[in-house]
Formats: sequence, structure tokens, C-alpha cells
Amino acid sequence: MTRSLIFASLLAAASLPALADVGYPTGFRHWDHVKSMLLNKGHPLYDAVGGLHHLYANPKALAGYKAGRFADGAVIVFDLFEAVDKDNAVSEGARKAVLVMAKDSRKFRATDGWGYQVFDPKTGKGSLDAKAQADCHACHRAQKDKDFVFSAWRE
Amino acid sequence: MTRSLIFASLLAAASLPALADVGYPTGFRHWDHVKSMLLNKGHPLYDAVGGLHHLYANPKALAGYKAGRFADGAVIVFDLFEAVDKDNAVSEGARKAVLVMAKDSRKFRATDGWGYQVFDPKTGKGSLDAKAQADCHACHRAQKDKDFVFSAWRE
Repeated sequence: MTRSLIFASLLAAASLPALADVGYPTGFRHWDHVKSMLLNKGHPLYDAVGGLHHLYANPKALAGYKAGRFADGAVIVFDLFEAVDKDNAVSEGARKAVLVMAKDSRKFRATDGWGYQVFDPKTGKGSLDAKAQADCHACHRAQKDKDFVFSAWRE
Repeated sequence: MTRSLIFASLLAAASLPALADVGYPTGFRHWDHVKSMLLNKGHPLYDAVGGLHHLYANPKALAGYKAGRFADGAVIVFDLFEAVDKDNAVSEGARKAVLVMAKDSRKFRATDGWGYQVFDPKTGKGSLDAKAQADCHACHRAQKDKDFVFSAWRE
């Protein structure tokens, strides 16, 4: 690799680390519960996020749902559990993952202001690299009219 | 009916109205979300509370879950929705009812300190009479060791 290529690679890398910088959403269990959904086998997203999930919004995200536009600092959590289907009841099993989307229009400019991360519930560590984060946003782009958010607040 | 019997009936009634006095849990959508569960057809409670439900706790109830004992003023809400099962996903349909259990050791002394009510989500009016409220507690009595509460807080 030539020096100029190495330099180009470093530059490219330097433009990406902000994407990885979504922090673990400490305290989210006390945020507002937006809604829940169960994804069963056969759903297109089952392999990625199958099970029972709950969405939580911090105060800025709650305001964002109502305004239709999310301010910097808004964070939405997708809290995912194993679905335990037994005796005609589906209840929560072990937590599978904690998914986050966080708004920072400067840090996440390349993805319309949204950063994404998937945290391991045991270690609290994120597993998404820049490529995977961009993949998240590729799907969320379909929701451009709702500031790239799929869920909606209901009373 | 003799006068003494009428009087006895009035006295009995006078000891009951407190049971009906569980207020609508205004603002509960911003309380802590405890857990959720889906009850499908075939579940023993399906006719009564079938569908997807979420449990919410006010601050005193949250403290109660952690302490194993609930102080007066603790309120737990069971927010019940139609379960819409489509394309391998179960999502929330219309709200069916808002069920409440509220702790007041004086008012609800006859039912170990817990008052119960089921509110119509459209009118905000309760539908349970004293007999039905006592029926609620007859079942909750099985949880005496947990201060008569079935659900548990999880982080």
C-alpha cells in the first residue's frame, strides 16, 4: 500500500468513528414506553429481531414523536426479549439485545442525523460496525417523512 | 323487610362504597413500564383479559415491587389492547380496557388494602361493582406472599 493510500484510508476511517459513538442508554427502563410488538417466525425481521420488543423514548424523543421531528439528544430504545409461548400465553424470556437510535445531526450527518447501535445486554457493548449502522439507516430511510422513525406515540 | 334488616343492609352497603372508589389513573402512560404479556385464545383468562397487556407502576408501586410490600398510594395499571396477528407479527390494536389495582389500607381494608377497578377506555368510567372487585381480590389472594401482586419488576 502506498503512503497516499494509507493516508486516504485513515481519512476515511476518521470520518466514520462518530457513527460508532452511540452510548448505552443508561436508565432507559424508566423512560416512556411507546409501544410493543411481537415478531414471530416467518416475519422478514425474525432472524434479526424476532421476539417481543418494547420501544422506549427519552424526554427529547417523546417530544419528537409529538412534533414529528426529533431534536439532537433524542434517543429511542428497542428492548428485545425472547418470546416464551406456553399454555396460550406469550411472556418475556431473556433479554436478547438493546437496540438504540440516537439523534445528533452533526455526529451522524452521513445518516441524516441518526446513529444506530445494538448492545449486548450482558456486556453493554455495541456490536455494529459502520457498515451495519449504515444498513440500519438504509431501511429507516423509508420513513423519511417521519424523521426516519418507524414507531409512533399513542396515548 | 323489618326496619332492623333494612338498617343492617344500609350498614353493610355503607362499608362497601370505598371499594368502588378507585380513581382513573390519569397520566399512567408516563409511569414506569413493568412488563408485558400476550394472552391468546384458550388461556383461562382470555374472555376476561385476552390480548396484549402492559403493566405500569406509579413511583410508589415501583418502590413496592422492589420492597416486596406496597405503601398506600401505590397504583398498578394493566393496559389492555386487542392483539392484531398479521403477517407473522402481533401488534397493538384498539385499547380494550384499563384495569387498576390501588393500595389504600384503610379504604380497602376488606380486600387486604387493595382496591380494583376496570375502566372503559372511551368513557373513563369504572364497571366493577363491589362483588366483582371482591372477585378480583379472591384471585390475587394467591399472591399473598407478594402483597397480592402477580407481576414483578425486572431491570
